[in-house]
Amino acid sequence: MTEIIEKKRDKYALSKKEIEFFVAGVTDRSIPDYQISALLMAIVLNGMNRQETLLLTDAMAKSGDMLDLSALPHTADKHSTGGVGDKTSLIAVPAAAALGCTVAKMSGRGLGFTGGTVDKLEAIAGYRTAVSAEEFKETAKRQGICIVGQSGDFAPADKRLYALRDVTATVNSIPLIASSIMSKKLAAGAETIVLDVKYGSGAFMKTPEEAESLAREMVEIGRGAGRKTAALITDMNSPLGLAVGNALEVTEAANVLKGNGPEDLRRISVLLAARMYQLSFGVSEEESLSAAERVISDGSALKKLCGAVEAMGGDSKLITGEHEFPAAGARLEVYAESGGYITSVNCENIGKAASLTGAGRERLEDRLDYSAGIILNKKYGDYTEKGERLAVLYGAKERLRDAAQELLSAFEIGADKPPESRLVYKIIC
Amino acid sequence: MTEIIEKKRDKYALSKKEIEFFVAGVTDRSIPDYQISALLMAIVLNGMNRQETLLLTDAMAKSGDMLDLSALPHTADKHSTGGVGDKTSLIAVPAAAALGCTVAKMSGRGLGFTGGTVDKLEAIAGYRTAVSAEEFKETAKRQGICIVGQSGDFAPADKRLYALRDVTATVNSIPLIASSIMSKKLAAGAETIVLDVKYGSGAFMKTPEEAESLAREMVEIGRGAGRKTAALITDMNSPLGLAVGNALEVTEAANVLKGNGPEDLRRISVLLAARMYQLSFGVSEEESLSAAERVISDGSALKKLCGAVEAMGGDSKLITGEHEFPAAGARLEVYAESGGYITSVNCENIGKAASLTGAGRERLEDRLDYSAGIILNKKYGDYTEKGERLAVLYGAKERLRDAAQELLSAFEIGADKPPESRLVYKIIC
Repeated sequence: MTEIIEKKRDKYALSKKEIEFFVAGVTDRSIPDYQISALLMAIVLNGMNRQETLLLTDAMAKSGDMLDLSALPHTADKHSTGGVGDKTSLIAVPAAAALGCTVAKMSGRGLGFTGGTVDKLEAIAGYRTAVSAEEFKETAKRQGICIVGQSGDFAPADKRLYALRDVTATVNSIPLIASSIMSKKLAAGAETIVLDVKYGSGAFMKTPEEAESLAREMVEIGRGAGRKTAALITDMNSPLGLAVGNALEVTEAANVLKGNGPEDLRRISVLLAARMYQLSFGVSEEESLSAAERVISDGSALKKLCGAVEAMGGDSKLITGEHEFPAAGARLEVYAESGGYITSVNCENIGKAASLTGAGRERLEDRLDYSAGIILNKKYGDYTEKGERLAVLYGAKERLRDAAQELLSAFEIGADKPPESRLVYKIIC
Repeated sequence: MTEIIEKKRDKYALSKKEIEFFVAGVTDRSIPDYQISALLMAIVLNGMNRQETLLLTDAMAKSGDMLDLSALPHTADKHSTGGVGDKTSLIAVPAAAALGCTVAKMSGRGLGFTGGTVDKLEAIAGYRTAVSAEEFKETAKRQGICIVGQSGDFAPADKRLYALRDVTATVNSIPLIASSIMSKKLAAGAETIVLDVKYGSGAFMKTPEEAESLAREMVEIGRGAGRKTAALITDMNSPLGLAVGNALEVTEAANVLKGNGPEDLRRISVLLAARMYQLSFGVSEEESLSAAERVISDGSALKKLCGAVEAMGGDSKLITGEHEFPAAGARLEVYAESGGYITSVNCENIGKAASLTGAGRERLEDRLDYSAGIILNKKYGDYTEKGERLAVLYGAKERLRDAAQELLSAFEIGADKPPESRLVYKIIC
């Protein structure tokens, strides 16, 4: 192991054998933390070429369970690098399923200021997110769609590396981020992978250029591993849609599937579903876009989501609107302290404010208040009078004052109308 | 700590406070190994400026005991970065003492292919290398000289860092090497420090340029900490002198002090002693050199060494030659396999061969055979006929065959006389 560290320290590329030795030692814990973190820092500073990154990803993917979806037709997966108010999975996944893709998707939980799809699903009474691999595959086969939490032991090498990177300032590295995400996607077994790589105040990548580097790396890894892969590079300088918080976001996603809901959210969801369809079936971009629009406007995507919810024991009437989500303990309106154009809605502050209402967690063991969260009334570029409502907070009464403080700090108000934001920076395909 | 790692990862200089926090956390073990090794790798790759290196050295020196030698006059210390056959301490230290310096010196043990002064002294029957700080200072005061092993808890932060660096490929860094050596020298308390920085096949630094960088860094650290500091940069492409092995080296050093012995060894020892004298007393270089020559030729340095040995309970008649060291179990002569000029005597192979005879140790707990070792008959640049004797090996019979094999691999013999080697590359003062 010392020789491997030495090689990377001296800027040499690691061989297949060396990378496999490293990943095996990470997995079976025969390599101690201090050697791993020395190598991680050398990788952060000296980089890895594409071949090394692919080998690392492949070895990490194979370090644990590999889901075999080969018996299912047109399997497609979707992954977002994480944001605030990002509920596209709840729209794009049923839309892709309505288009004939089989979407067997394992999602994550939220942590820090970003949300997670599993938390959103658990806001739906009865929804079981922890199921066996057999039930997962069986449901996907029957319904064309199944969304659950991660079960089994996927990419355990990545799990250990990720925990170490977090405490050794070695998170920030394109090869390490790309291999971490893609190892789990490869293990999850879908033949098509569509990535939503976000940049901005609510994302890990702060600039579109960084996001593009990451996206290109991941697309190359996916292809190198024989998967059809594409990536959208999208803006996360403002929250996506108007709702942040678990039940609130499910409702907003359902609204989009009913032909309503915010345009930014609808548009990105359509692009994602269309790309999944296009790669899976080899249709043209134009055709895929109009098909994705159609399954949303004709209600077939909504039906797919209801089916997916029912299959997991959830109350689909919460989706159709026949039932209502439990109301939050209290609500608090937040008003603009001055008049002008909204020149910034800082995502990290919005995410933190949502967390303070009870919608997010600081630590993995924190319990969530599913009814808690934020509905924004003003977004980036809007005009507000002094005293106009910016947002409504929902949650336990004693939590809302701090949340309101945090929320207010997210808004910057100025005299001039800011430039229009570009929702989609680029599509890598 | 994560922020400190991040800062160094991003090429910023660390502040006094950050370096002190780091060293305190290393010492009290509140910082885990994996964070330390990530920072070490960032330092290896992004460097440290002189101010940071000085702060790190100072903090490490203060992390444990600090020897107070202020009551003793003209205290001087000498340190070699380590080599094969390097017994200069046994000559230069008594010579400096004979010139009026007080040399209270804590020495180390050998490991791998390099020897250590403490091992050489322990070859002398009765010599106690482990004494209390009080006895050490008392002896130095009375005799002007005292050489023992490290007692007390000097630079514990360095101890922990050193152990980690060894297994994380983070040894090779001028600021880390310089601070490691100098933290112990500062803690050892002498006001004058003369360094012998070696380069070549038997040294850690392979080129004179690397050795010079390290030497300059260490001299600056010493001066920054208020010590009079100088460094010799000397060749270690061939062993120093002809003897390698503990009792054999003591005998060779004693021979130099009697006016005999190999010229290379005598010359470096004179330069070291002269530099200690020059810095301590502020005399001219010329005066210091002739004084150092004089105390060696008139027997006063020999007398100092005998006094130092007696003070520690050792048999000084082994130095004067009235007693003989115990004979080795066996001897084995090694002959040249071809005729020509000796174009290389690889130090690492010679060191390993000596270790194989029983003179060195692979692991710290190995026991030594003090009578074991090598006497070279041919050195770099010499001419040899085929079948002429290159060296004699001493040690337990069963060990000598492997040692001979290793020894032979050290010699390269060619048709052309090689260029003369430069014993001293530079003096930094």
